Amino acid sequence: MTKLTALLALALAVPAARADEGMWTFDGFPKERVAKAYGLTPSDAWLDHVRLSSARLAQGCSASFVSPDGLVMTNHHCAHSCIEQLSTTKKDFVKNGFLARTLADEVKCPALEVNQLVGITDVTAKVNEATKGLDGKAFHEAKRAATARLEAECQTSDALRCEVVPLFGGGRYDLYRYRRMQDVRLVFAPELAIADFGGDPDNFMFPRFDLDLAFLRVYEGGRPARLDHWLRWSPAGAKEGELTFVSGNPGSTARQLTVAQLEYERDFALPERLIELAEYRGLLTEYRRRGAEEARHSSDQLLYTENSFKARNGRFDALRDLVFFGGKADAERDFRARLLAKDPARSKEVEAAYTAIAGAQDVMRTLRVPYRWIEQRKGFDGKLFGYAREVVRGAEERTKPSEARLEEFRDSAVPQLTQQLFSTAPVHRELEILRLTHGLTKLREKLGADHPLVRRVLGKRSPEEVATAAVKGTKLADVAFRKQLWQGGKPAVAAAMKDPMVALAALVEPDARAVRTRHDDEVEAVERKGGEVIARARFDLDGASTYPDATFTPRLSYGQVKGWVEDDGRRVAPFTTFAGAFERNTGKDPFALPASWLASRPRLDLETPLNFVTTNDIIGGNSGSPVVNARAEVVGLIFDGNLQSLAGDYGFDERVNRAVAVDSRAIMEALSRIYGADRIVRELRPPAHAGAGRPGAAAR
Amino acid sequence: MTKLTALLALALAVPAARADEGMWTFDGFPKERVAKAYGLTPSDAWLDHVRLSSARLAQGCSASFVSPDGLVMTNHHCAHSCIEQLSTTKKDFVKNGFLARTLADEVKCPALEVNQLVGITDVTAKVNEATKGLDGKAFHEAKRAATARLEAECQTSDALRCEVVPLFGGGRYDLYRYRRMQDVRLVFAPELAIADFGGDPDNFMFPRFDLDLAFLRVYEGGRPARLDHWLRWSPAGAKEGELTFVSGNPGSTARQLTVAQLEYERDFALPERLIELAEYRGLLTEYRRRGAEEARHSSDQLLYTENSFKARNGRFDALRDLVFFGGKADAERDFRARLLAKDPARSKEVEAAYTAIAGAQDVMRTLRVPYRWIEQRKGFDGKLFGYAREVVRGAEERTKPSEARLEEFRDSAVPQLTQQLFSTAPVHRELEILRLTHGLTKLREKLGADHPLVRRVLGKRSPEEVATAAVKGTKLADVAFRKQLWQGGKPAVAAAMKDPMVALAALVEPDARAVRTRHDDEVEAVERKGGEVIARARFDLDGASTYPDATFTPRLSYGQVKGWVEDDGRRVAPFTTFAGAFERNTGKDPFALPASWLASRPRLDLETPLNFVTTNDIIGGNSGSPVVNARAEVVGLIFDGNLQSLAGDYGFDERVNRAVAVDSRAIMEALSRIYGADRIVRELRPPAHAGAGRPGAAAR
Repeated sequence: MTKLTALLALALAVPAARADEGMWTFDGFPKERVAKAYGLTPSDAWLDHVRLSSARLAQGCSASFVSPDGLVMTNHHCAHSCIEQLSTTKKDFVKNGFLARTLADEVKCPALEVNQLVGITDVTAKVNEATKGLDGKAFHEAKRAATARLEAECQTSDALRCEVVPLFGGGRYDLYRYRRMQDVRLVFAPELAIADFGGDPDNFMFPRFDLDLAFLRVYEGGRPARLDHWLRWSPAGAKEGELTFVSGNPGSTARQLTVAQLEYERDFALPERLIELAEYRGLLTEYRRRGAEEARHSSDQLLYTENSFKARNGRFDALRDLVFFGGKADAERDFRARLLAKDPARSKEVEAAYTAIAGAQDVMRTLRVPYRWIEQRKGFDGKLFGYAREVVRGAEERTKPSEARLEEFRDSAVPQLTQQLFSTAPVHRELEILRLTHGLTKLREKLGADHPLVRRVLGKRSPEEVATAAVKGTKLADVAFRKQLWQGGKPAVAAAMKDPMVALAALVEPDARAVRTRHDDEVEAVERKGGEVIARARFDLDGASTYPDATFTPRLSYGQVKGWVEDDGRRVAPFTTFAGAFERNTGKDPFALPASWLASRPRLDLETPLNFVTTNDIIGGNSGSPVVNARAEVVGLIFDGNLQSLAGDYGFDERVNRAVAVDSRAIMEALSRIYGADRIVRELRPPAHAGAGRPGAAAR
Repeated sequence: MTKLTALLALALAVPAARADEGMWTFDGFPKERVAKAYGLTPSDAWLDHVRLSSARLAQGCSASFVSPDGLVMTNHHCAHSCIEQLSTTKKDFVKNGFLARTLADEVKCPALEVNQLVGITDVTAKVNEATKGLDGKAFHEAKRAATARLEAECQTSDALRCEVVPLFGGGRYDLYRYRRMQDVRLVFAPELAIADFGGDPDNFMFPRFDLDLAFLRVYEGGRPARLDHWLRWSPAGAKEGELTFVSGNPGSTARQLTVAQLEYERDFALPERLIELAEYRGLLTEYRRRGAEEARHSSDQLLYTENSFKARNGRFDALRDLVFFGGKADAERDFRARLLAKDPARSKEVEAAYTAIAGAQDVMRTLRVPYRWIEQRKGFDGKLFGYAREVVRGAEERTKPSEARLEEFRDSAVPQLTQQLFSTAPVHRELEILRLTHGLTKLREKLGADHPLVRRVLGKRSPEEVATAAVKGTKLADVAFRKQLWQGGKPAVAAAMKDPMVALAALVEPDARAVRTRHDDEVEAVERKGGEVIARARFDLDGASTYPDATFTPRLSYGQVKGWVEDDGRRVAPFTTFAGAFERNTGKDPFALPASWLASRPRLDLETPLNFVTTNDIIGGNSGSPVVNARAEVVGLIFDGNLQSLAGDYGFDERVNRAVAVDSRAIMEALSRIYGADRIVRELRPPAHAGAGRPGAAAR
């Protein structure tokens, strides 16, 4: 072990979070720690205000309320699917941007849902009671039933969304109650060229020059929702070294994974996903050359694919780093040794959990190909097969009581599922054929031409023939047909077997179910149960003064505006400016500033900060999070992390891990001087609230 | 350590090859071992006859001489580039096959070269003398100089090719002298649909139904070359359990790599190459949809890409197998422990070598991106940039004495280099633009948009603009221009800077050189030197009764016709038949039998064996190798290995590792009853030699 490894091991072995690390729950926020580091203590009222002013996009992003009239700020890339879905060949809002001049011009997004966290209840005791003494499949099912029951009790209306959230790997269970807002309209989006300036080459990089911004508005009863909590706008932005908070929904981290799980990640999950993404990216890149329409309707897929690739590649880099991986291994060894020394009986139980988790990885090694390609339907890629799977499986699942169903079909999950299933977003058949053809081709490659399912699916036809027939022949692109099948349940689905896509989903269902069951029982249940045993032992050994792994639920992180020093000694300053964007402009995609920027240049204050970095601990899912100062004013809008932040899945290194945000001053400058969006500017900074006495100003 | 690991470790720890393992040199063939296992001893005359009847395709395959008039048998996929290059949109020999009805119809391949190994000389002492006491860069250079000198002394004419081959990781150096045959003509090729029946899905699979066959002919002075040694044809083929020999040129194995090197392979080299190949495959798949011409002229690239992908994926699987990898680690530990116990002084030297090799992996981790993307020019993909690199670098290199040059520009390598450089194979500009655009795009992604080289290469232009301008503007597609630049040397190249591709190569050259130098000095030289120290210690400890890692030089393996049992208990029989091919036919690519087969079906004996498997230890490079029986008669033609054989890079498992061959009886059946290739049938089995007294019948 080198000296560096030893130091890192020591660092990782310390159980409590250090420095600015941590994605804290709102009810577990380390106020004293912040007070000690920054001399400021957020009050409970302040925390409640920030939580209630924050939002989650159910599809996987964060956002904030920034006016009493339901104005929502998020990233362009979080609203991208809506912007693309509202576009047509003639009106391309992705390319040209969108601005609703009046309230009446705001347009409903086909498939966006905004959630606001209104209540948290600790239900650990109830869940533990239900699973007491159980193991494996029985444990998993009992927990599922208890969870479904708790959620059902909570969920008294469609305007609510209740979720039991396992925290600390099951060390604690909280019931989260969200207000659901399903009428979400598009207010403003800049051109993709500046929202994503630098494109994939600059993704996860800094210095950066992006206006990755969109405004939405939530409606209730056909009118803008009236809100009690929203974030005020900071006219001054943040200074270098200033304390910053990020309130958002980090999607998932894996900082408590065992070494056996990390090995599986490193050797299987990550490289295989990267290979998948790379091939699909190649396909899409050329597909877009078929024509302007193809380029337009596949841009969302390409962005998603490129972003996923780069993010996973960063994680792969972290796990291939011998020092980093060695540090994780040393930390695990240290914990196990300390536990053995302190409590041999407990240690025995924990060692059994480690063994069980390692065994689950062995199962996953043999199960991963059918699980990914059949059950996770990479072999049946595309929206239409997804719809078919949902109506076919949903019809079967909904004959059972909620708690006996697969997770995604429980009553609590149905509103979100039907929101997607009944989306009016257009279906592009050409892209669907590409995706399904590719999926079936890879399915044959992965399982072999002689696999019984492959033979059943293809028969004497080629993947392209099967895909083309299913995509062209199905009525699933029609929302009414999907509604009919969903509402009609099993008889309706049985009567729809002439629809080739529905029939295909039904054909695949037995194999998919079989592998799902094995996965849930032999891998997922074992990992969860073992993870809980380890997590609880870790609490008892080291105290609970830490934060749980991310779970796509509201979290608050603290940090400061701060650059960093690269390995090669290069210092990276914390701010960029509009001037930098003009310098970087080549006029060629993805480094082409839009015409609106070029035309407005004379009017702009080029020294206005554009993007900045902070030490806040964030991860995917935090996109769209507001950055607020001690007075809970918006100073920025998170849209990315630097390359080093990608290791954040497994650990946080404050020296180099940085969150990347749009500066609040840049937003004002662009709205007023480039886009003429005076309506939004007035709403963000009404003349009336230039004074004191704001409800959010409570950190002191 | 599980029991299985322990057993495997023991197996791998035994230094001498067991059972049918081994790719033996002709002068180190284990006659006694074969005698013991099979009761037959090949005589020296037999070995010489087989060696002289075997051939190497300089571009990376194996072959054999099968008539006194220079007829050469190899795989379709080895001749594929020639078949494609001779094709046009109107005459597609890839799709429709090729048959020269008369000698006059045989057509010259633009870029094939056949080599026959005519002499082997041990030059170990001379090389060791030259490098005595040297280290690192000095060692590397001294060895390079000695090697170049020995090759130059040997190479007295352009009709010869001399190579110093390091064997046993440098434990031994042999000077191999080949006869070069550069006038190679296409005689016969079946349709790609049957040569590669089952395509990528069936690649590396068995049961299999391929006629992966091509016949070429070597010419001298414009007439068929007259040969003294050639392989006779077996009318009966081989039976299950029969002893078989495979004579060919296995490309490379890495069975002696250290664990540090294997980790680098597992974590970096293999997954990153797989990701590269996957993306390029996606691009090509869609590119082929642009039109029939695009599909035709990129089929070679696609085959190569898919094959590389599947082969590397198999190796990746082997290294991710914890039992397999653990076995390699245990074997290394065992060797180091035994050496320490027996000879502590020697052990110290060997341990230093292990440390140095591990250090070289650390260097490679930091160097790999620029090395791959700049020096190995993945960022500058395509034939045309390749030509530009060769003329630019060649002009510089050839101002130095041969032994001071980079390996590929030494006098001994120049004939092969110019054979490629002056090839009349067509250049497809559309494909070139695709490849260079993709390369430049990835270069920017890999190095970052702010990397100085990226800025120099792209400036304000997009990758596509730079690629299009360079491909459209260059004259390098013209052989005469390439000749002029090559022959004109530095002044000619300097005068050609208006050619955008030449200028691009010149622009990249300083960066490429710099990373090449670091790689050669800090990685390659260290690995070679360390590998030699370890290999020699292993000899001295365990005796030299083993075989060297593959080096794309002639080797002989022995084995038998034998099926295997899969992990799930399924038995795989050793032979397939024509009947199976018709059963597998779906009429859809890649499972569509060609029209010639469908039409000939009534005439065929459907029980004729088509493909078979043997236990011979082969690897990539062995494609096209003859399978011969104890009488040195052709009983088959190697064209593949099974999936399990892909672990063969790192180790051989006789239980499941199998070579896959076309049966000699299938070749006869197809030539006579499907293709009407009577001229070839008569040449392979002239009425005169049906009797005894064949020169090759010498194993008894």
